[in-house]
Amino acid sequence: MPVQRSEHNPILRPQDVKPSRPDFEVTCVLNAAVTRLGDEIILLLRVAERPIVDDPQTSRVPIFDPAKGELVLREFSHADPHYNFSDPRGISGPEGHYLTTLSYLRLARSKDGIHFTVEDQPALFPATEYETFGIEDPRISKIGDTYYIDYVAVSPNGIVTALASTQDFVTYERLGIIFAPDNKDCMLFPEKINGKYYALHRPCISGLGKPQIWLAESPDLLNWGRHRMIAGLRLNGWEDLRIGGSAPPFRVPQGWLEIYHGAGPGNRYCLGALLLDTDQPWKVLARSAQPFMQPEAKYELKGFFGNVVFTCGVLCEDGIVKIYYGAADEYMAYAEAPLQEILDGLELVENR
Amino acid sequence: MPVQRSEHNPILRPQDVKPSRPDFEVTCVLNAAVTRLGDEIILLLRVAERPIVDDPQTSRVPIFDPAKGELVLREFSHADPHYNFSDPRGISGPEGHYLTTLSYLRLARSKDGIHFTVEDQPALFPATEYETFGIEDPRISKIGDTYYIDYVAVSPNGIVTALASTQDFVTYERLGIIFAPDNKDCMLFPEKINGKYYALHRPCISGLGKPQIWLAESPDLLNWGRHRMIAGLRLNGWEDLRIGGSAPPFRVPQGWLEIYHGAGPGNRYCLGALLLDTDQPWKVLARSAQPFMQPEAKYELKGFFGNVVFTCGVLCEDGIVKIYYGAADEYMAYAEAPLQEILDGLELVENR
Repeated sequence: MPVQRSEHNPILRPQDVKPSRPDFEVTCVLNAAVTRLGDEIILLLRVAERPIVDDPQTSRVPIFDPAKGELVLREFSHADPHYNFSDPRGISGPEGHYLTTLSYLRLARSKDGIHFTVEDQPALFPATEYETFGIEDPRISKIGDTYYIDYVAVSPNGIVTALASTQDFVTYERLGIIFAPDNKDCMLFPEKINGKYYALHRPCISGLGKPQIWLAESPDLLNWGRHRMIAGLRLNGWEDLRIGGSAPPFRVPQGWLEIYHGAGPGNRYCLGALLLDTDQPWKVLARSAQPFMQPEAKYELKGFFGNVVFTCGVLCEDGIVKIYYGAADEYMAYAEAPLQEILDGLELVENR
Repeated sequence: MPVQRSEHNPILRPQDVKPSRPDFEVTCVLNAAVTRLGDEIILLLRVAERPIVDDPQTSRVPIFDPAKGELVLREFSHADPHYNFSDPRGISGPEGHYLTTLSYLRLARSKDGIHFTVEDQPALFPATEYETFGIEDPRISKIGDTYYIDYVAVSPNGIVTALASTQDFVTYERLGIIFAPDNKDCMLFPEKINGKYYALHRPCISGLGKPQIWLAESPDLLNWGRHRMIAGLRLNGWEDLRIGGSAPPFRVPQGWLEIYHGAGPGNRYCLGALLLDTDQPWKVLARSAQPFMQPEAKYELKGFFGNVVFTCGVLCEDGIVKIYYGAADEYMAYAEAPLQEILDGLELVENR
C-alpha cells in the first residue's frame, strides 16, 4: 500500500492543545504548515476555538475587534428568528455571516516528527480588520534564510491570502494581503524561477469560473501579477467540485511536484499530485489519475467535518513524502508515501 | 440642476456601429473609456454583438476559440431541456454558462466630444483563453506617454481584469491578467503616489464579503499587492447591493476624486463620488451622501438593461466633469456636471 499512516495517528487532537484562554475550548487542530528548524520539525497548526457555553440554546461567537485589539464575544439566542443556526460552523443573520469558532496559528515542535509539543501561546493571532473571524490554513516556504508564511484571513471583508515572515518562529512580520478576496490555497515556490517568484493560488469564483488552481508571478513576493489558470476540475469522481494547491511545491528530477487536494461529491477531500515544468511552472506535465490518498481511517472519516484528508505541507526527504495533514477537519495526522509511488501514479496530460 | 445631459443623447446607439461581420448585429454600445489624443477625444467603446438568428426558437452563441484564433458559433435549440434560456443575457447548461452576446472594444473619435466617428474595425478583440466570452468595460489611464487600458476579460475561467497598453491607439500590447477572478471595475491612478502605482478594483465575492471597493499598490503596474478594502456598501437606498469604482480617479485640490457607481434595490445604478487623500489614497475623506446622477432620461430608464447610468471614464476640464456613460446598458450618452457641485455633495466620513 503506497500510503503508510502513522500508528500514532492522530498525532494531535483538540484535547492536546491548551485553549488560549480558560473560558474557551479547542474544537479542532488541523491543516498545519510544516518545516524544519534546526534539529526540530515545526508544525504551524491551525487551532480553532470557541467560548464554552453551558446553555445549548445560546451561541457565543468570538470576533477580533481591531479597535480594541482583543476578542469580543457576541451572544445569540437560538430563539432569535432573525438568525439561522442550522450549520454548526456558522451563523447567518440579516447583517451577514459569523463563524462559530475562531482559528489562529500555534506552533508545535518535535524531534522525531511524530511526538509534538504544542506551545502555550499563539504564534499568529488575529490582529487586523481582515482577520476578525480568524486566520487559517498556513503554508510555510523557506526562501533564502527567511520563512514565509501565507495564510487565509477571514473577515466580513472576505476571505483573503495574507503573507507574514519570520526568521525564528519567535517574532513575525505581517506583510499585507497578497491576494484579494476570495482567495485561499496559496503556496509559494521555494525559489525563484528565471528571476521571478511564483505562487499557486485558488481564487474563489462567484460568477462564471470554477474553483481551480491558478499561478501568479512576482518580483518581490509582495506584488503579484500575470495570473494564469493552470489546472482545472475534472469530472472523475474525486475532483469534480473544487481543487486547490495543498503543500508548497518541491523539486523532483522531472520538475516541480505539487500535492493538491480535490473535492468530489459529498465534499470528500482527497490528495493528488501535479507535475509542473521546471522552468515554466505554468505547464502541467502530468497529473494523478486517481488520488494517491483518500479518507479511509476512522479519524479521517468522522470528525468536525468528516471524509477529509487535507495537507498544508509535506517534507520530501530520502525519497519519502512525509505528509502532515488535517483529518476530518479536527485532527492532525501523519502519513508517509514513497515519492516514486506518487510519480508512478501520474498520467501525462494533453491539456489541463 | 447639477447634471446637464446632452441634447444629442444618446450620442451613440447600436445602429451607429457597423457590426464586425455581416452575419452579426450590434445590440449594445456602452461603457466607454475616454481620453484625449492630440486634438481629438477618443472613446474606447464596449460593443456587444450577436449572430443574427431568424428562428426565435434558436440561439447562436459567439465564442472565441483561442486554438483557431477566431469566433465559433454554438447553436442551441430552445426545445433542449438541458439549457435555460430565461435570461436574455445568458444561457445556462450542465457544462456551465454562456453569454448571448460577445463584447469587444472599438474606437470612436470626435473633435467636439459629442459627434463621434466609430472605426470600422475592432481596436481590441478577444485573443486569449481568458477572453473567450468577450472583453468589457475598459478604463484608460495615461501614465507618462503611455495609455494603459485595463478591461474585464470573461471566459469559463472566470471574470478577470487584464491590462494592455498603447501609445497611439493603433497598436496595442497585452500585458496579462493583473487581478485574478472574479474582479472588475479596476482603474489605475494616473501617476505614482510616493513612488508607487495605485489601482482601485472590485473583487467579486463568493463567501463572506460584499462587492466593495478595494485599493492595491504596485511597483510596475503589472504586479499588485497590499490589497485594502477602502469603501463599503451603505444601506441608503442607492448603494446597498454593490459598489465599484467607475472613472479613473483624477486630482482635485482636496485630494483624488473618484466617480463610482452604486447599485441599490432593483439593480438601479447611480453615480456618486469619493474623495481620497492625496498621499494616502486608502483614506476616504468624504463621500457622496446622495448620488449626483441617477437614471432619469428615457434612454437611461429603458434599454437592454434599464435603470442604469454607468461611467468608465470622465474628463475633468475647466471645472466641468464631462461624463461619458453607458445608459441602460445599450447606449452611450454624455452629461456635464460642475466639479464644485459634486464636491459640495460630499459628506465627511468618519468611517467608510
